[in-house]
Amino acid sequence: MTRVAIVGAGPSGLAQLHAFEQARAAGADVPELVCFEKQSDWGGLWNYTWRSGLDQYGNPCHGSMYRYLWSNGPKECLEFADYPFEQHFGTPIPSFPPREVLFDYIKGRAENSDVRRHVQFDTAVRWIEHDPARDAFDVTVEALAEGASRVEQFDYVIVATGHFSVPNLPDFPGFDRFPGRILHSHDFRDAQEFAGKDLLVVGGSYSAEDIALQAKKYGANTVTISYRSAAMGFPWPEGISEVPLLSRVEGKTAHFSDGSSRDVDAIILCTGYQHHFPFVASDLRLRTANVLYPPDLYKGVFWIDNPKMMYLSMQDQFYTFTLFDAEAWVARDFVLGRVDLPSREDMAKDVAEWRSREDALPDPFAQIDFQADHIADLMAGTDYPAFDLDLTRAHFKKWEHDKEESIIGYRDRGFSSPCTGTQAPIHHTAWWEAHDDSLTTFLGKE
Amino acid sequence: MTRVAIVGAGPSGLAQLHAFEQARAAGADVPELVCFEKQSDWGGLWNYTWRSGLDQYGNPCHGSMYRYLWSNGPKECLEFADYPFEQHFGTPIPSFPPREVLFDYIKGRAENSDVRRHVQFDTAVRWIEHDPARDAFDVTVEALAEGASRVEQFDYVIVATGHFSVPNLPDFPGFDRFPGRILHSHDFRDAQEFAGKDLLVVGGSYSAEDIALQAKKYGANTVTISYRSAAMGFPWPEGISEVPLLSRVEGKTAHFSDGSSRDVDAIILCTGYQHHFPFVASDLRLRTANVLYPPDLYKGVFWIDNPKMMYLSMQDQFYTFTLFDAEAWVARDFVLGRVDLPSREDMAKDVAEWRSREDALPDPFAQIDFQADHIADLMAGTDYPAFDLDLTRAHFKKWEHDKEESIIGYRDRGFSSPCTGTQAPIHHTAWWEAHDDSLTTFLGKE
Repeated sequence: MTRVAIVGAGPSGLAQLHAFEQARAAGADVPELVCFEKQSDWGGLWNYTWRSGLDQYGNPCHGSMYRYLWSNGPKECLEFADYPFEQHFGTPIPSFPPREVLFDYIKGRAENSDVRRHVQFDTAVRWIEHDPARDAFDVTVEALAEGASRVEQFDYVIVATGHFSVPNLPDFPGFDRFPGRILHSHDFRDAQEFAGKDLLVVGGSYSAEDIALQAKKYGANTVTISYRSAAMGFPWPEGISEVPLLSRVEGKTAHFSDGSSRDVDAIILCTGYQHHFPFVASDLRLRTANVLYPPDLYKGVFWIDNPKMMYLSMQDQFYTFTLFDAEAWVARDFVLGRVDLPSREDMAKDVAEWRSREDALPDPFAQIDFQADHIADLMAGTDYPAFDLDLTRAHFKKWEHDKEESIIGYRDRGFSSPCTGTQAPIHHTAWWEAHDDSLTTFLGKE
Repeated sequence: MTRVAIVGAGPSGLAQLHAFEQARAAGADVPELVCFEKQSDWGGLWNYTWRSGLDQYGNPCHGSMYRYLWSNGPKECLEFADYPFEQHFGTPIPSFPPREVLFDYIKGRAENSDVRRHVQFDTAVRWIEHDPARDAFDVTVEALAEGASRVEQFDYVIVATGHFSVPNLPDFPGFDRFPGRILHSHDFRDAQEFAGKDLLVVGGSYSAEDIALQAKKYGANTVTISYRSAAMGFPWPEGISEVPLLSRVEGKTAHFSDGSSRDVDAIILCTGYQHHFPFVASDLRLRTANVLYPPDLYKGVFWIDNPKMMYLSMQDQFYTFTLFDAEAWVARDFVLGRVDLPSREDMAKDVAEWRSREDALPDPFAQIDFQADHIADLMAGTDYPAFDLDLTRAHFKKWEHDKEESIIGYRDRGFSSPCTGTQAPIHHTAWWEAHDDSLTTFLGKE
């Protein structure tokens, strides 16, 4: 029997399992699916943990999410076309839900399609290699609770381990003598730790933006954001400011490239993540920066040297769940024999065209369109349910403007669903004032 | 040619390389040695890093040492018999040096015996398995800077990766909502982070003892130590106290099993380490608690199912470098064909005898003798230079009494060398007052 290994039961791994189950429900003959998940529960990053660094088994902790994290994009731009928010919650909900609410939504679809039976939890993949003689993948896995390793054979491998889990951690002169905590955003958990403190946040993207706001919202005295290339330039609330790149630290004094300096109590490196596949043999291993169209992946999914090796969700993302679904559908259709891939040469050429188009994108608005086009290209040959993709492009562009207008207020807006057309209500509490992020409070169930 | 893989270039890996070099200098024919070290420099735990959690390559950070760490046992009980402290430093030095001084000492011997040429830095071992048909080990390694994996064959494998690097991290009710930092001692770096704070330290062994003192020394307001089985009972300085086991956390209030509670700002789990070998196939993998004589290792070194697989320094330790040397010498002599091992059955019987003797040990004094006996047993058949092992037993026992007498003052004592007989001078500054732990200040070079 044909066997498919799926590595990871986060949003993209679950999308993959769900895609196969949808085909099965429609009468397709589906191969054996085995999903390996190193955590004890599904949901990937959305499965919050207080742990940081290493997990209970001594393996790198997958979780990068922190308490009080709210979606930083409209939920309408990540809505499952075959499982709208309104279907899950039974009522329209606001556009920027906290983590627990989105986690609940992800779990809802996975439970509905009964994919849990395919998942082996507390099981880490240690090594994946391909044997050309047998055209099979040897996958070494470890049952973590028992510390027992074994090798299994698969015909297809789909890597769905995400790429916001393994920090990129630059060094700066003086870090080895800084008298306070230095952490990566991956290890950031509860902003209240920094109440009353003067914080330095190094970085210029989403993590820096959100953690700076988060820290201030929960009581930090000041937050200084140090950027490498360009200031984010949002209308920051009082107490948050931007300075150029950190050059060195002396004692607790941080010095910046413009000659200015600040005394700080802690340093949070929001310096991004690595695409990290220590369990994949060199000849199958994706190597990429965080871009919209990584190299060597045809349609962003198929490893061009061996398309039975697939990667999901390895793109830098505006679209998240929507993109994962589109990729999962295409990967599924390839496994089911519904899709033929072109020659390696033609795949490489296609990737090169997308990549050169990406290189020429002038701004975030063009990037949004580029990723929407990628999704449209993926969905074209599949039976993924139709939804209003153009509406989500417009939503993202409005959202960019909303953020420029008010970085503390952009979450207090509502967007319409590309699946149902429903207009989202405005949340009962402004985000900047909402300190309780629980599902029950958000849904007004208490 | 015979090939030997040594995993790790910390104190025990370096002891192994040094042991082989001593044999080579004496005219022996030494096999090819390849030492794989995932860090960028040697010294293992003694190679301090400001990083915690994951390292620059996204792999678990090896380092567990913190700033201002001083030896917590007399250096005379870990002195290299073939490279006394006096030889390295050119003058007698006090008995409890800070980390940088011991690191310098470790490096000194390794440089003298020119072992660096065997070490491949920034290279992680990903998988070790044994092929019975060829009686060879297949070792999958990755050059981390390039992300390039390869498989190499070896006749012997010696695992020297230590066991104080991967934390054991229990969960407690309420941790997921504690409004402050929760960390393991593995991630503890600079005590000044906790100045002015009320700290909870969970644990009852060396890490708890030393980190509690360290935090107080550098300005913590109070330190509450929560023990599982028994209080350490040292004469703590004001502001440090012991309570029974943590039962739960509510907000920032820690509740203990005796019904008492304290408000705390941060929680440090000094809950020990795991023997963690995710890169070793099940049939070769040591599974053990932190004990003086682990199961399945003949003489504490040889994997009884396949003695060409060896482990160094996997014991709970009074003796450290001295034990590593004794083990490295025996491992070397086995590889060089100087030692024949008994049958598997006899090895298992011997291990069982040691383990049952360990089980009956009544107190730390008996444990010290047990480990000294183990060392004597190891050294008996080797050419490791003679030193006064009985003197070190006496030193350890006196040290135990010193600690009971003054937990902040026991480092202000001097012991005599088991190698040279020299009496150590008393340090120029009492440890409790010494805030500068640099090598130059310690050696009085400024």
